[in-house]
Amino acid sequence: MASVNIYKVSQKILGNCIQKQLWRSYATAGTVSSFKAKDVEVIKSNSLAPKPDVGKLKFGHHFTDHMLEIEWTEGSGWKQPKICPVHNFEIHPGAKCFHYATELFEGMKAYRGDDDKIRVFRPMENMKRMLSTAERSCLPLFDGRELVELIKQLIFIDAAWVPRATREQPSSLYIRPTMIGTEPTLGVNRATQALLYVLIGPVGPYYPTGMAPVKLLADPKFVRAWPGGSGNFKMGCNYAPTLAIQSVAEKHGCQQVLWLFGDDHQLTEVGAMNLFTFWINEQGDKELVTAPLNGLVLPGITRKSLLELGKKWGEFKVTERDYTMNEVVKALNENRLLEMFGAGTACVVSPIEGILYKDEMLQIPTMNNPVITNRCMKELLDIQYGRTPSDWVEYLD
Amino acid sequence: MASVNIYKVSQKILGNCIQKQLWRSYATAGTVSSFKAKDVEVIKSNSLAPKPDVGKLKFGHHFTDHMLEIEWTEGSGWKQPKICPVHNFEIHPGAKCFHYATELFEGMKAYRGDDDKIRVFRPMENMKRMLSTAERSCLPLFDGRELVELIKQLIFIDAAWVPRATREQPSSLYIRPTMIGTEPTLGVNRATQALLYVLIGPVGPYYPTGMAPVKLLADPKFVRAWPGGSGNFKMGCNYAPTLAIQSVAEKHGCQQVLWLFGDDHQLTEVGAMNLFTFWINEQGDKELVTAPLNGLVLPGITRKSLLELGKKWGEFKVTERDYTMNEVVKALNENRLLEMFGAGTACVVSPIEGILYKDEMLQIPTMNNPVITNRCMKELLDIQYGRTPSDWVEYLD
Repeated sequence: MASVNIYKVSQKILGNCIQKQLWRSYATAGTVSSFKAKDVEVIKSNSLAPKPDVGKLKFGHHFTDHMLEIEWTEGSGWKQPKICPVHNFEIHPGAKCFHYATELFEGMKAYRGDDDKIRVFRPMENMKRMLSTAERSCLPLFDGRELVELIKQLIFIDAAWVPRATREQPSSLYIRPTMIGTEPTLGVNRATQALLYVLIGPVGPYYPTGMAPVKLLADPKFVRAWPGGSGNFKMGCNYAPTLAIQSVAEKHGCQQVLWLFGDDHQLTEVGAMNLFTFWINEQGDKELVTAPLNGLVLPGITRKSLLELGKKWGEFKVTERDYTMNEVVKALNENRLLEMFGAGTACVVSPIEGILYKDEMLQIPTMNNPVITNRCMKELLDIQYGRTPSDWVEYLD
Repeated sequence: MASVNIYKVSQKILGNCIQKQLWRSYATAGTVSSFKAKDVEVIKSNSLAPKPDVGKLKFGHHFTDHMLEIEWTEGSGWKQPKICPVHNFEIHPGAKCFHYATELFEGMKAYRGDDDKIRVFRPMENMKRMLSTAERSCLPLFDGRELVELIKQLIFIDAAWVPRATREQPSSLYIRPTMIGTEPTLGVNRATQALLYVLIGPVGPYYPTGMAPVKLLADPKFVRAWPGGSGNFKMGCNYAPTLAIQSVAEKHGCQQVLWLFGDDHQLTEVGAMNLFTFWINEQGDKELVTAPLNGLVLPGITRKSLLELGKKWGEFKVTERDYTMNEVVKALNENRLLEMFGAGTACVVSPIEGILYKDEMLQIPTMNNPVITNRCMKELLDIQYGRTPSDWVEYLD
């Protein structure tokens, strides 16, 4: 197994990860070794499950026949990667992942194009983020390219599960790389045993409502992330505290939470997505704005892609900066607010029609004329389904 | 199974939980039902493990022969409680606890006294906190008294594992109630399936250094908890982000992190413990001070017990309030700082000898004359081992 210096990994693989990672030089000293895709052992399932009806796909409820798993121990490093039937884990009840949330995940997708080819969307971007999260979580590093190659092998084996989408039903294959600390001892310490695994499964729209616009609860009492915390990493720990707040949102007739931050009520994220606002700014320019990668938001791949697309179009300003509810309310009152939408792998783009803020439901006019929302959705899907050629997709072979 | 109104549970069981829980009325509407201790099924192990040498106990590394487990589903409520041999769980890799940190735990202890009787320390306090955490985590509620009775049965069955302590080696039985979301679907939603379980095991000192004083890294860059977050609940999610920061502390020759908060560098917690400072305050009074339960610190049972003991002694002021590093540095410079120590179930009391703050190692004089540190330790241990009669302990029968 190849042994690479961690600092080289950091520079090469994490090079454009924007957050300043203060613990980097401490958390994982020394060298790391990686598993290799060519070493994979494949154990095929004898009993293939029936594929679900594409029209009835419920997000996260369907898994294919096979999964990938790779064990790691501090003493021996990574073991041989295995593609095997999806199966229950045998895990000791003292495993660190059950007690201290020693866990992380990624969300990626593969799409079956009109040409029947399967494309994976920017997988190396997910690997960069996954490795960055692994460092933050004190979980082991690896070579991201090797994991992508293994994921492609897994998708190839279960290729029949990658749904054929229609323009009305943009289904795809969701890919969930996960890493958990499995060392069976109590005590708040880094895990000396871990398991990296990948589940895949066909998905339809993330929300049961599909592309229907959503209403958001924006209450500064509830805070998702803060400076010096871990809100900019895809660690399991960032999600558990949001469930109760989501319940509060639903109680108020909202589908999602708009996460504010600070005394000035900066807009950061929506649900588990990045947030985009398209408006005519105070200078009179059309502008697509999203919160900056200042540690309070997840560095989303969809976020990054939309920023890059918007800049390429060159038709309006594209800005990463802090912006506040006061600015949003002012723009709304002055008829300058045009569209707001969430953006993430699971839903791609999710239009926003209302924000419950200070006991008032602000009517967000996105759906009056969702030009940018629809264009973002369409251009991304066109790339993902291969209608527009792009080097953002990787093929299975 | 008895069905009790959730609001009654909240008032009765959570009555003195000091945090204002904004989501309470939304998060778990309706009624809850609880398992009952009298319904327990006991499956004894055929092969009992050898007991470890009390002198060589490593915290969290030893489990007894049996455990308690109780399954829950949203549709059917709690199943029959089971005391059974400690065994690996069979869990689907899509279980919510692996992805979104849908999990919580408690830490409690039982002590074998000089009279050979086994005492559990303030278990209903842990139940209050566990139920409060369960609400915050959108995990199911139950009757805390029933769980305590089941834990006592479990300890009774494995009573031979409860170590006989000496004054030099204050060993005990650590009790780890845990609850995890087991529903095997992806998507950030509350779990419709959960598992409550309890592991127990003999423990020696929490730190390998025993009662040796510790040095702390106090760097305001690293923030454990935030208003509007979940830092005052015993959710797994609060621990994962601390591992990397702990590495930073160790890199600087410190054993633990002193968690600061705010621009004025308030002292909140130390490692995973509450923090106490004993000083002569600016008014010239002897004072034992700890951070208030304002949402940034865990409502520790040891914390609560020491506050109650200190007030009972009536020899110095006992204060819950915000205090800052400026105040600590000033007191140190004016020779008014006497002792600082961490307090928690695992270590009981842990004296502090240094704080690395702004690149300077502040020498904390705790060990020069650790009167209050030692007294807190001794009086708690005397209660826990039954040397001092107290209604803070419950017996097995």
